[in-house]
This record gives sequence, C-alpha cells and structure tokens, in this order.
Amino acid sequence: MKPSLNWLLIFVPSALVLRFWPGLANPAALFICSGLAIIPVAGWIGHATEALAARVGEGLGGLLNATFGNAAELIIAGIALSKGLTGVVKASITGSIIGNILLVLGFSILLGGAKHKEQRFNKTGARTSVISLSLAAIALVIPTVFHLSAAASRDGWSPVVERQLSLGIAIVLFLTYICMLAFSLKTHKHFFVSAEGELEEKSEHWSRGKAILILVIATAVVAVLSEFLVGTIESVRTTFGITEVFVGVIVVAIVGNAAEHSTAVVMAMKNKMDLSVGIAIGSSLQIALFVAPLLVFLSWLFGRPMDLEFSLPEILAMVASVYILFQISGDGETNWIEGVQLLSVYLILGILFYCLPEVAEGTPTPKKEAETPALGSY
Amino acid sequence: MKPSLNWLLIFVPSALVLRFWPGLANPAALFICSGLAIIPVAGWIGHATEALAARVGEGLGGLLNATFGNAAELIIAGIALSKGLTGVVKASITGSIIGNILLVLGFSILLGGAKHKEQRFNKTGARTSVISLSLAAIALVIPTVFHLSAAASRDGWSPVVERQLSLGIAIVLFLTYICMLAFSLKTHKHFFVSAEGELEEKSEHWSRGKAILILVIATAVVAVLSEFLVGTIESVRTTFGITEVFVGVIVVAIVGNAAEHSTAVVMAMKNKMDLSVGIAIGSSLQIALFVAPLLVFLSWLFGRPMDLEFSLPEILAMVASVYILFQISGDGETNWIEGVQLLSVYLILGILFYCLPEVAEGTPTPKKEAETPALGSY
Amino acid sequence: MKPSLNWLLIFVPSALVLRFWPGLANPAALFICSGLAIIPVAGWIGHATEALAARVGEGLGGLLNATFGNAAELIIAGIALSKGLTGVVKASITGSIIGNILLVLGFSILLGGAKHKEQRFNKTGARTSVISLSLAAIALVIPTVFHLSAAASRDGWSPVVERQLSLGIAIVLFLTYICMLAFSLKTHKHFFVSAEGELEEKSEHWSRGKAILILVIATAVVAVLSEFLVGTIESVRTTFGITEVFVGVIVVAIVGNAAEHSTAVVMAMKNKMDLSVGIAIGSSLQIALFVAPLLVFLSWLFGRPMDLEFSLPEILAMVASVYILFQISGDGETNWIEGVQLLSVYLILGILFYCLPEVAEGTPTPKKEAETPALGSY
Repeated sequence: MKPSLNWLLIFVPSALVLRFWPGLANPAALFICSGLAIIPVAGWIGHATEALAARVGEGLGGLLNATFGNAAELIIAGIALSKGLTGVVKASITGSIIGNILLVLGFSILLGGAKHKEQRFNKTGARTSVISLSLAAIALVIPTVFHLSAAASRDGWSPVVERQLSLGIAIVLFLTYICMLAFSLKTHKHFFVSAEGELEEKSEHWSRGKAILILVIATAVVAVLSEFLVGTIESVRTTFGITEVFVGVIVVAIVGNAAEHSTAVVMAMKNKMDLSVGIAIGSSLQIALFVAPLLVFLSWLFGRPMDLEFSLPEILAMVASVYILFQISGDGETNWIEGVQLLSVYLILGILFYCLPEVAEGTPTPKKEAETPALGSY
Repeated sequence: MKPSLNWLLIFVPSALVLRFWPGLANPAALFICSGLAIIPVAGWIGHATEALAARVGEGLGGLLNATFGNAAELIIAGIALSKGLTGVVKASITGSIIGNILLVLGFSILLGGAKHKEQRFNKTGARTSVISLSLAAIALVIPTVFHLSAAASRDGWSPVVERQLSLGIAIVLFLTYICMLAFSLKTHKHFFVSAEGELEEKSEHWSRGKAILILVIATAVVAVLSEFLVGTIESVRTTFGITEVFVGVIVVAIVGNAAEHSTAVVMAMKNKMDLSVGIAIGSSLQIALFVAPLLVFLSWLFGRPMDLEFSLPEILAMVASVYILFQISGDGETNWIEGVQLLSVYLILGILFYCLPEVAEGTPTPKKEAETPALGSY
Repeated sequence: MKPSLNWLLIFVPSALVLRFWPGLANPAALFICSGLAIIPVAGWIGHATEALAARVGEGLGGLLNATFGNAAELIIAGIALSKGLTGVVKASITGSIIGNILLVLGFSILLGGAKHKEQRFNKTGARTSVISLSLAAIALVIPTVFHLSAAASRDGWSPVVERQLSLGIAIVLFLTYICMLAFSLKTHKHFFVSAEGELEEKSEHWSRGKAILILVIATAVVAVLSEFLVGTIESVRTTFGITEVFVGVIVVAIVGNAAEHSTAVVMAMKNKMDLSVGIAIGSSLQIALFVAPLLVFLSWLFGRPMDLEFSLPEILAMVASVYILFQISGDGETNWIEGVQLLSVYLILGILFYCLPEVAEGTPTPKKEAETPALGSY
C-alpha cells in the first residue's frame, strides 16, 4: 500500500561495518549510512506500533500511536541530549516541526494536487490541531523573549531562572497534550474519525507478541544507529563545511520523518487527504507538545537541565510554518499551488539555515557582542 | 442570574479600617483588601450603567455601555498615571487585554464546553471586533519599533518625538473606536443584535435617578479603593518579591475584570455563547481602542505625557493573545479544548511575567546596555 | 468608465520646462511635477497593456498584464537602483505593497461600503494570492534575521553571503510567481474568471500596432520622468525635512499606484468587488513576487548586487499589512468598517515613517552602536 523503503535496510549492516571494522573509520560515510539506515527501521517502529494499537483496543491504541509515533526523533534527540549537544536537540525539534508542516505536507499537497484538481479534508479536526501548534509556537518564543528582556533588567538574566521557566512551559505544553488526547480520542473523536478508520485498515496483522518483539528490536536498532549518527555530527560539520544547526534542522529532521513522509504522500495521491493532513499535522503536534517537553524532563533527569531558548532563525521558522499552515488548512480544500507555497517557504528557510555561520558556543563573550549590531540598527 | 459577588463588599470597610486606623498600617493586607473590595463595586458600576442604558434608549444606551464598561480599569490606571507609575499603567492595559481574551474567554469556553458539547456564536460580529483588536496590537507595537529604529539613526532617538508619535497613534485608535461604535450601534447593528437583546433583559430595573446615584457612589468608592491599591504596589513588590509588571499584568487585570469574568462564565454555562464572547472581546476592544488612548490624552492633560512604548514581553503577550483569539473565533463554534488552549497561553504568559526580573527604572544606562546581549546573539 | 486623470498630463511639459529651462532649477517643484506627471502616463501604460492583452489571446494576454501591470514602479525603482539608492528601492517596494493593500483596498472598501451595505467577492482566488503574499512577507524578513543572527556568530556577518542569500530568495520568489501564473491563467483560472471577464470588457479597442506604439512611448516618458523624480529626492529631503524612507514608502508608492487606485475605487463603487480586490491584491503580489526579485536580478547585472534586507519598520509594515489583509479577505465579504480598519493601519504606519529620523548611511559605525539600546532593554 505504500512504497517499501526496506531496501534501505542494507545500510544497517553497512553502518555497523563502518563503525567497527578496524581501519574503516570514515565519519562522513558512517553519518550518511546511519542516517539512511534509520529510515526503514523507523518505519518498522511505526508498523509495529500500529499493529499493537489495533490489538489493544481503541483508547489505548490511540495513546500508543500518539506516544510512539515519533520514536525515532525522540531517540535521536535523546542521545544528542545525553552528549550535551543541546544545540542539535533544539535544531532537530525545529526541523521536525517545520519538516512535517512544510516538506511532508507540501509534497503531499503538490503531488496529490497533480493528480486531483481539488482535494478536501475535514477542517474541524485540523483547526484544533493547528491552534495547538500556534500555542506551542508562542510557548517556544517565550524563553528567548525572557532572555532579551531579563538581560536588560536591574538584576540581569539568570540561566537558572530561564531553565525553571522552560520547565514550567514544558509542563503546560505536556498537560495541553494530554487534554488534546482526551479531546481527540474521547470527547470529540468524531472530528478525527475518518482518518482513524483508514489508519487501522492499513496496519499489519501481527500478533501482539510479534508486534512487541519487533517494536523492541527496531527501537534498539534505531538507538544504536542514532548513537552513530549523533557521534559523527562533529566530523561532518568539518568535512562538509555545514553547521550544527543545518544538520539538526534539515538532515536529522528529514531522516527522522522519512517514514511519515512516504505514507503521507502516497495517501495524498490516493486522494485520502484526511489521512495525509492528519499525519503531517499530527506529527508536528506530537513533536511540539510531547517530544519537546519530554526532552526537557529528560534533561532534568540527566542532571543537565536544558532550556527551551531557540535562536531567532529557529523561532522565525517555527512561527512562519505554523502561520502558513493555518492559512492553508483553513478552508478544508487543497490544490497544487498550496503545495508549491509550502515548499517555497521550506526552500527559503533551508537557504537561510545553509547560509548561517556557526553559532558561537555558549554565551557570547562581551567582545563578540561589541561587534554585534543591535536590533536598533534596523 | 449571575453569582453574587456582593459578599466581597465586606472588604470595603476592611480596607478603610486598614488604611485609617492608627497602628494598623499593613500595606500588603491593604493591597489585598482593596483589590478584593473593588470587585463587587466594579460590578455595581456595571449594573448601574446597564440600568441607565436601558432607560435612555438604544443608541445612547449602547454608548453608555461602551464608555463605562471598563470604568474600574480606567480609574485604577488613571490613579497610577497621576502618580507617574506609567509602568503600572501600561502593564494594566496589557493585563486587561490578555485577561479578557485568555482568562475570561478561556474559562467561559472551558466551563461552557464542559456542559455543552458544541457551542455556537455569531462569527460576523466577532470577526469585526477581532480585526480591530489586531489593528490595536499593530499600533501598540509601533512605538517600540520606533525606539529601536530611531536609536540607530544619525540623529538618535528622541523621547519627545516618541510621545508625539504615541499621541498620533492614540488619536487614530480613538477615531477607529468611534467608527466601531457607529458600525455596531448604527449601520450594522444586526451583526450584534442577539447579544444586545440578552444584555438588556438581564439588566436591573432601576429608575434613572437611582441608576445615576449608584453609578456616582460606586465610581467614587472604586476611586478611593484604587488609590489604596496603587499606593501600596511599591510595598507589595518588596514584601512578596514580585515585580511591578506582574502586579499590573496579572493582579490589577484580574481585579478590574472580575465582574465581566463572572458574567461571561455564567452566560457560557447557559449556552448563551454570543453574550459570553461579546463581553470578553468587547471588553478587550474597549481597553485597546478607548481606555488606552484616553489614558494618553489624560497624561498630556496632567502635563506628564505618556508614550505607548510597551516592553517586549507585553508586546508578545498582546500579539499572541489577539492571534489565538482570531484562530479560535474564526469558525463561530467553540468546544472545551479551545478553552484549554486559551488558558494554556495565559498560564505560559503568567509564568513569563512571574519569572521576569524587575525592569531597570527609566532609560537603561549605557553601562547596563553594555552587558546586554543584542538580539544579534540569537 | 473610470475618472480620467489625463488632465495631469499638463505636468509632463511642466516637468520638462523645469528641468531644462535655464534659470528655473527648482528641485522641489521638479519633484512634485514629475510625480504628478507619472500618474496619467502610468495609466496609459496600463491601457495599452490591456488593449494589447485583449488582442493576443487569453494566455499571453494574462502574462502581459501580469508583467507590465507595475511597469511604472519597476521603472522608478530601476532608475533609483542604477543610481545606487538601494534605500529608496527597498522603501518603494515596501510602499507599493502596503499602499495597494491598505490605501487602495481601504478606500475601495470604504467608498464601496458607503454605497452598498455589504459587498461580496470570490474568496477562493483571493485566498491563494494572500497566502503567496504571506510567503513573500516571510521571505523578506529573512535577510534581516540573517544579519542579526550571523553578526553574533564566530565568523561574523558577511555582506557577500547576505547578497547571495537574497539572490536565492529572489529566485524562489520568482519561481513561485511563475507557478502562480500557471495556476491563475491555466490550471485553476475558474477561481479568477469573473475578474478577467470584466477587465477585458473595459479595455480600449486599439489595434495591436497602436497599442504597442503607445506602450513604448508611455514607457519612455515614465522613464524620463522617473529620472527627474529620483534625481531630486536628495534635495527634497533637505527642503521638506522628510527622510528618504518616507519619500520611498509614501510618496513614490502613491505616485506609482495612482492609476490602479482610481480603477479599484470606481469598481468598488459599482459593486464589482471582485475586480477591486483583484487589482489591489494582484498588484501587491506582483510587486512582491515579480518586481522585487527582478530588481535583485537587475542589481547583479548592474554589477552592484542589492540585498533584500529591509529595516525593522518596513518589515513591520509589510507583515502587518499582509496579516490584516488575510483577516479582512477571509470571509469574502466587505463592509465600510473594514475599509476604515485598513486605512487606520495605513495612517498609523504613515505616522511611524514620518516620525522616523534619517537612517545612518551604510553599516552603522561601532560608536553609534554603543549608543544603541539593544532589544534586550525592552
């Protein structure tokens, strides 16, 4: 029913060989192989989750889907977090959100629209999700505003307060996610029904045991591959002359979302726009309201609390994506030009992240700031 | 028809005792008592205005309602203005706008939605008001942009020009408000009819004289209590370790809007969503287009012209609230999750204002700025 | 069918006399005469384009209209570009976008609404155009964000990279424009049909040869007058004490769009809202997605590459205009208050640009920056 990405599994052994065969140490090749290898295995996590969800009944099943839907992104980001690469973690959150909205939905609408002149989807369900995404975008702007504002105050900016502020925001986002689950799985599931029916239909018919086994194995493999991927980011930056943020926003985000991507595009071409839109928006929503808060909670567990302060380009990318999504999803109809519009925004943001020089590590030193033009110069 | 808040009247004598009884000087207690005492008296201003409005005919009545609807906020802010506490004035404008949109409407939709699966309101009237709120949000961003931009120019930033700019903006906002009144009370009143009918029905049946008398007395009492409230802000900041902005945005805004709040929630639970939405949006609109300009005009009368330059967190709060309101009010339907979404935004903004350190008084000194990271560092 | 502006042609000889008659050198008078003289001649370019378009068949005709529709703005900006006045070029882009959205559409809706209680237009076509305008607004924010962000990095900000970034953005915008043409003239022309039918009907019945001749002559005259106009900006700034940005945003934009303006207002008063909205939105779209990129390409041809970095007030103006337009055009209905709202925003932005002091030429010097408050102080 969807194009098999299983041939990419060949990169799993390739990655292992590159990593452990003596004398074959090539970080760039290992980075590429790990990235490609994660794609099909992430797809298997998805299948297993769906199969399991179909076995355990509706409510728990929906919860399972909602929790494991972005397992790959969570694992990659979690490993980056454990290595203290918070820049990569935040960049991959940004990248997953904009990647799903602009790239996945953009291609779905464009390719769907190439076959079908006009396509329709249930706008009521989409509306609720998009509002939650707007809420998340507002939330993720706040720590940066806090930093700017606090730095000018009598008592100055405190990283400790900012981490507490970020924890507070993460808690509110997480609670909102729980409410969204109750809303979409319980009180107002008729808003989302058509999509669910289709999803169940297409799931594999595995036994509960088989599903759990595959889930565990696939998750472990993704964890190992993510370890390789994240471990080679440093070398890749030097080799290809690209920045940490570009790797996070573009590369990691594409790798982690490839499975959703292919499903959403195939559904759009079959004129099942509800499913296609549901996957793209639902996946962004899960990253913003579930994965991002979870990573903050994890960072406190690891004893190295992470704040949610994003860079200005990341904020622009998230706010712009959510805003364009709101405009495009508002009327419950799509046509090919809307796909072009989403992809144009992605392209423009991609160019921006490609052109951006490496961000200074840690807090900028006073000397650097003296060279910085204030916003006032604009 | 709505829950009586009259038992809070007990705090009126309490506040008087605390203020004038020798030896009882406790600013924190006086602050709390004054705040609680204002709530029911502000409600009485509302009843008297409605009763009077019902007596004087439709057009003038609408005007009365539109002018006295936020008398309490106006009085509190006016007294803060006369003491030169422009920070408190602006914070209470911000707080009233976001409080009505996020807190009042959020609770109304959540509690209404808990009883009624889906609720409807007339989206055409709401749309016009929300566009005016967007216009106001744009206007209130401008002085800050002016400051940033002018500061980098050859001739530098001038507080005198900024005050003139703010006066110009206030005049445009005020004229827009007059147009809105003509639109909603004259040329297109059918957009707003259902709400009006209900409002009249619930108003008290007082004679014109009684209504005026109560209006005058209640206004005087609110003025005295506001004097106490504003006079104790300084001590409260020290005692509770909270900032002037937090007091203005959260405390003053809740106190000033408590009466609207209870009415809006009750109406929502009775499934009269038109009324509920009308109160919340109408009240924000009045603050933004009528009270804020009026305070600027007053400040020129007092000889201490106030500009309309808001802090970055205040701007974020206003823009974000109006944007979320636009999304939620767009389809003329509400359900409980939309209430959760509005309250989540309020909670997140509340956390931000709580965490913000005290803003440096006046213009930041060059030394402080040198320590400030420019926006460039993001 | 529309009010003749031909009496303004008297200013063509006046401008020539003022420029070439010895002893009559008065830059301010020449500036005003040239500006007024461009208005009717730009109108003639429009008539000739429409007449030619009607003669060459639908597809090519649409393309012609879409390409020459803003010939006057393009010529004025091109001449400013050739003189290295990039500040004026960018200001006139900003001014044309906001002028069409706020001033042209605002007056159309207000005056149309004064005659007709409620007016309707096809919201599907408008929606697509408004989304493209949002995309353009996002694109035009990016170079400024790049500058701010890059300036804080290890390697610092580079004007060369920013020009390449701007070129990349211009290419994406241009490709999007081509897609929009294919969409509106080919695959989905039924979204835009009613407007087209009307436009053809009103065009002049000139032979192909006559149309081309008039087009060539009118274009040459506009080029000469633009040369005068741009050449006197420097003196006008000094004489009237207004800034380069104010001249570009307000004066040049009004002059270049006067012809569209009168047509759009007349159509609105005839209750042909589709045409009126189509002219205003289409014209902004053309500036943002066609003229702006073309000017960047031209600047590379001239060997003096221009970036697309706009000032903060210009960005605010564009984002705010497009956002208000989205809100107002969303329901396919207009009434007079929406005209007031658009004009209020224009007025407020006009006050801002009037109050802004002259921007420092080139990159601000370090000394100036030291005096600049960082955004942090807000």
